Amino acid sequence: MSLENLLQQIEFIKEIDKIKYIQRKTKLINSDRNENDAEHSWHLAVMAIILAEHANHPVDLMKVIKMVLIHDIVEIDAGDTFIYDTQKNHCNTDEERLAANRIFGLLPQNQAEELISIWEEFEAGETEEAKFARSMDRLEPLLQNVSNNGGTWSEFNVKYHSVYKKKKVINEGSSKIWEYAEQLINDSADKGILKR
Amino acid sequence: MSLENLLQQIEFIKEIDKIKYIQRKTKLINSDRNENDAEHSWHLAVMAIILAEHANHPVDLMKVIKMVLIHDIVEIDAGDTFIYDTQKNHCNTDEERLAANRIFGLLPQNQAEELISIWEEFEAGETEEAKFARSMDRLEPLLQNVSNNGGTWSEFNVKYHSVYKKKKVINEGSSKIWEYAEQLINDSADKGILKR
Repeated sequence: MSLENLLQQIEFIKEIDKIKYIQRKTKLINSDRNENDAEHSWHLAVMAIILAEHANHPVDLMKVIKMVLIHDIVEIDAGDTFIYDTQKNHCNTDEERLAANRIFGLLPQNQAEELISIWEEFEAGETEEAKFARSMDRLEPLLQNVSNNGGTWSEFNVKYHSVYKKKKVINEGSSKIWEYAEQLINDSADKGILKR
Repeated sequence: MSLENLLQQIEFIKEIDKIKYIQRKTKLINSDRNENDAEHSWHLAVMAIILAEHANHPVDLMKVIKMVLIHDIVEIDAGDTFIYDTQKNHCNTDEERLAANRIFGLLPQNQAEELISIWEEFEAGETEEAKFARSMDRLEPLLQNVSNNGGTWSEFNVKYHSVYKKKKVINEGSSKIWEYAEQLINDSADKGILKR
């Protein structure tokens, strides 16, 4: 049983290597190189550990870490959807559900069920853990875009109002971090790197 | 105090973005593209979560995850040292200690102290958590090299004996995973992708 588990786990571990090829729209800090999903997920996990003290409510940090580490694995099959894409809704498409079943389904059943459930919880964004995890997911590209003179905001002509609305989700996870982020968004508009 | 902490934490979060540029010698699975430290660290964290059941002794999984997420941050200043490098010892050089103090030192003092201590614990490799974390760190490139017809073993003419000795560390973290890894190493030698 233990060996059978291990062999399934190894297949999963090899499969998820592919996430390193999934490019995001946002670029690294002070850079013109696109970030990939593995780098992004690593960053969010470290951020969650470092910033947990600012969560609005106590969170199960282990669950938050699992969420951010695995939240983009479905993109191996479904691809990355740009957060400001007006054509395609990001949340939990059929394509993403199929991907979750296929990829997490490589694992022993109890682990597959746990990770699918954690991914769904993240996507639903209702629990304290999901809210905090999502605030990390919104904060990282904000720091990147600010460092890149507007980054994807300039590149895809995204306006203040859209950014403000998407980023406001940070407030649900941490009003303290939102206070900082809101200031950053307003400063960006004042500097002209985010158009009103 | 809370805002002061947050501002220090944000500086750290921006600084560690640089780890995404630190290239390892090993290539991704079935690939000729080098892996970077952020991708590597992400992979180890997911592996630790998935494989924890195989640890020789119960481990504090949160500590293991912190270890693998941050173990290579010092390489932002000190650079990656190839594990089979015969000129340069990997472990805890003065350069790495300086890097740890500088980079983790960007954080509020209690967090800086915690992460430096966790990094030192990983490097020392003596606790159950460090042993298990190190077994993840040895397993991932093994899977990569096997998928790449020998990968860095062929590229840098590394022989069976050296690989076996370096990988045997896996046994200290998990004899179950070592059993699998040992088989993989022996199979690689039999297939000729790892020279005896």
